[in-house]
Amino acid sequence: MKNPLNRREFIRQGALAGLGAATAGLTFSGGCRWLPAKERLMMGVAPTGREAVRVGFVGIGNMGSAHVKNLLQIPNCQITAVCDIREERTAWAKNEITTAGFSEPAIYGRDDWDYKRMCDREDLDLVYNAAPWRWHAPISLAAMECGKHAASEVNLALTIDDCWKLVETSERTRRHCAMMENCCYDRTEMIVLNMIRQGVFGEILHGECGYLHDLRAHNLSPTGYQGMWRIKQMERLNGNTYPTHGIGPMAWCMDIHRGDAFDYLVSMNTPSTGINELANRLADEADDRQTREHYASWAKKQYAKGDVNITLIKTKLGKTIICKHDTSLPRPYSRDFLVQGSKGLLRKYPSEKVHIEGLTKNHEWEDMTSYNEKYLHPVWQNLEKQTAGMELAGHGGMDYIEDYRLIQALRSGLVPDIDVYDSVAWSAIIPMSNDSSNRGSKQVKFPDFTRGQWKVKRPLQVDLVKVI
Amino acid sequence: MKNPLNRREFIRQGALAGLGAATAGLTFSGGCRWLPAKERLMMGVAPTGREAVRVGFVGIGNMGSAHVKNLLQIPNCQITAVCDIREERTAWAKNEITTAGFSEPAIYGRDDWDYKRMCDREDLDLVYNAAPWRWHAPISLAAMECGKHAASEVNLALTIDDCWKLVETSERTRRHCAMMENCCYDRTEMIVLNMIRQGVFGEILHGECGYLHDLRAHNLSPTGYQGMWRIKQMERLNGNTYPTHGIGPMAWCMDIHRGDAFDYLVSMNTPSTGINELANRLADEADDRQTREHYASWAKKQYAKGDVNITLIKTKLGKTIICKHDTSLPRPYSRDFLVQGSKGLLRKYPSEKVHIEGLTKNHEWEDMTSYNEKYLHPVWQNLEKQTAGMELAGHGGMDYIEDYRLIQALRSGLVPDIDVYDSVAWSAIIPMSNDSSNRGSKQVKFPDFTRGQWKVKRPLQVDLVKVI
Repeated sequence: MKNPLNRREFIRQGALAGLGAATAGLTFSGGCRWLPAKERLMMGVAPTGREAVRVGFVGIGNMGSAHVKNLLQIPNCQITAVCDIREERTAWAKNEITTAGFSEPAIYGRDDWDYKRMCDREDLDLVYNAAPWRWHAPISLAAMECGKHAASEVNLALTIDDCWKLVETSERTRRHCAMMENCCYDRTEMIVLNMIRQGVFGEILHGECGYLHDLRAHNLSPTGYQGMWRIKQMERLNGNTYPTHGIGPMAWCMDIHRGDAFDYLVSMNTPSTGINELANRLADEADDRQTREHYASWAKKQYAKGDVNITLIKTKLGKTIICKHDTSLPRPYSRDFLVQGSKGLLRKYPSEKVHIEGLTKNHEWEDMTSYNEKYLHPVWQNLEKQTAGMELAGHGGMDYIEDYRLIQALRSGLVPDIDVYDSVAWSAIIPMSNDSSNRGSKQVKFPDFTRGQWKVKRPLQVDLVKVI
Repeated sequence: MKNPLNRREFIRQGALAGLGAATAGLTFSGGCRWLPAKERLMMGVAPTGREAVRVGFVGIGNMGSAHVKNLLQIPNCQITAVCDIREERTAWAKNEITTAGFSEPAIYGRDDWDYKRMCDREDLDLVYNAAPWRWHAPISLAAMECGKHAASEVNLALTIDDCWKLVETSERTRRHCAMMENCCYDRTEMIVLNMIRQGVFGEILHGECGYLHDLRAHNLSPTGYQGMWRIKQMERLNGNTYPTHGIGPMAWCMDIHRGDAFDYLVSMNTPSTGINELANRLADEADDRQTREHYASWAKKQYAKGDVNITLIKTKLGKTIICKHDTSLPRPYSRDFLVQGSKGLLRKYPSEKVHIEGLTKNHEWEDMTSYNEKYLHPVWQNLEKQTAGMELAGHGGMDYIEDYRLIQALRSGLVPDIDVYDSVAWSAIIPMSNDSSNRGSKQVKFPDFTRGQWKVKRPLQVDLVKVI
């Protein structure tokens, strides 16, 4: 670990270790497993502030390129190193970085594991990765082990084992590990969050969410995902393989780990038909032999992944959530976002509608339009002023906000919006829904990654710090 | 049993009993349990045709009144007896019947069990009941025991035990027992059914449905349901207590008991808040002491029924269904109807949208309007001509069609659209979802009421007989 703990963190860790030894009578090398949860956990822990946040970026593909562009526009942020096994992608990033007026970044990419060498650099505060899914956990773990904070594209982890490793590593190294769930910051989702905080929907009881996006063509395309990694995933893993765009905003709406927690889930899949059908058709329609053979090879495979997955989640306080996944059938894009409380409800798709008792006519929907301005979240109010005229990469501004909020938290020494507990609880739905749906929709309990501390009512950072 | 079997039915039953004895080596008095399923079942069994269908009607409240009005307009139908414990309701019915030019009906209603005396009459072919839920099974059983066909408002049964009793009684008495699920006949649902039959959506994989209707005020009103029966139900029973408006049309779309069957369900509830909140508010707002005390008495009760119930159903062929129930929160009406196949999908709420691969622009919805005329179901084409200028009671015509179809099937000796197996499988969701949701969303298997005969691909009667 070349980047030594600074004085402030050193003192805190020393104090905690002492307290742990005194209270629980136990500490052991390499971990602080037996510290009392309240002291050991990385919940609500402010990082050390810095003048500027130095980022090492791993994986510069579809989403990585968008994040690199955003980071170059964020104040007090610098990309000092980049890593990708594709030389043209690091060359692209280097060009973007120098064109933006920054020094040349260090380049990594000798092999799949070269991110480890990068994590070891001294001039990094944050390792941010947008690599294929299976690399998210290993890269984040390597970053924290080297004393860097970790940020990862969704999903953070694919196994419960990795979820625990990430929690324990974050706690031991006192480094944050944040999954970058952009949909938490979408304009509508943040308006809804603001409405919930102001009591518009009463007590929240039920939510619906998901990721419903026809990705067949992109998943099957020879140029879609590097090495066809995304479709290969579908040969092995069933269940909801991409839950966080839905469940992230829902967790915020339901105060998950801030007074409530996911208790258990049950999950169900349809058969798998969509990929084979389209691959067959694309093979038939191909103009050349190479393309035909490409599609034919994917047409004859068997996919574990059912076309539609429906997962039901019950929270400790008894709330219910439907979380859907559907990326292999022809359909319009949707995240099926719906939040329902004792005084009304809102649905985002196919159009934004709301019903609020006493305001909306009984038994009817009304367009959400009339509430948008009144309840625009302060974070968005701030962003829209600040970024007027800027070209923001990715999904209409929400990707910029998520990057902006993390960088400013690390710079100003504020608690990040999404911590390791949020990140792993949202990701754990992947292996758990696979398990449940493969075993007759059996009930699967969420591990309590917070060791009981979910009960503590804490504010969500976006509510508390209105403008950073 | 005063109404003797007619010759044709007598011969059939005799032949079947003989076949049963020869094949299984077993018959016993009072039942034909050991006949081979194919011979014993009431699937696809045509009733004996009649010149006119003579109806005894039980329960003339909210829905009963609408059915009475419709039956009086249906050709070849006569209401010869009516039964209700409220004298003003039988008087109302008598007046409607005589005003329509029919003879005075016999009146029953001495006590809760007077329907039994009515079932025993000779001049009845069908006993139709729209009594409170808990009476549906007993009245239908009494009807069949007296040699009458039975029709019941939804739901048909509240326990698995009653489901089996209804099946066994229908089989033994060779009388049909049809649950009158009006939503099967709704205009849009029948258009969708027609589109499915013509392959527009490809292989059907997933469906969503439910009953989402803010009934708080009606359930709590002193004049809403006779003796407050509907809200009393909520003190005892959790789960989806009213599944059939959603699951009926879905079962038709998915060929349930015509090549597929429900396999199992899992179910989940939110806490119960809605009834208590509104009752408290209505008590506060009451102008007089009596009203205040009425609402206050319901405000202080505890309700087993969670505000929102979500049930997932898996079919034997692996299809998935979300079935929702939500009648205790402020919200717009919806049945959340959605059917999804390998080539596209349709949603009915909040507005009718469709996506069909190759026809709709990729990743977008289009209004269903342009498909409505092309795919209008022949049953509706016929009805709209036939009833032009008539005043139809209940839900825009679908209630008339359901009554019309049953009466014409009994008159013409055609297989009814909905048989006892459909009726009990749809109703069984009530006790099963209660069981699952009270036990951590445990998997609950559907009983196979068809004893394996669900595998046989048979046409649905509305597809086959286009115009009767």
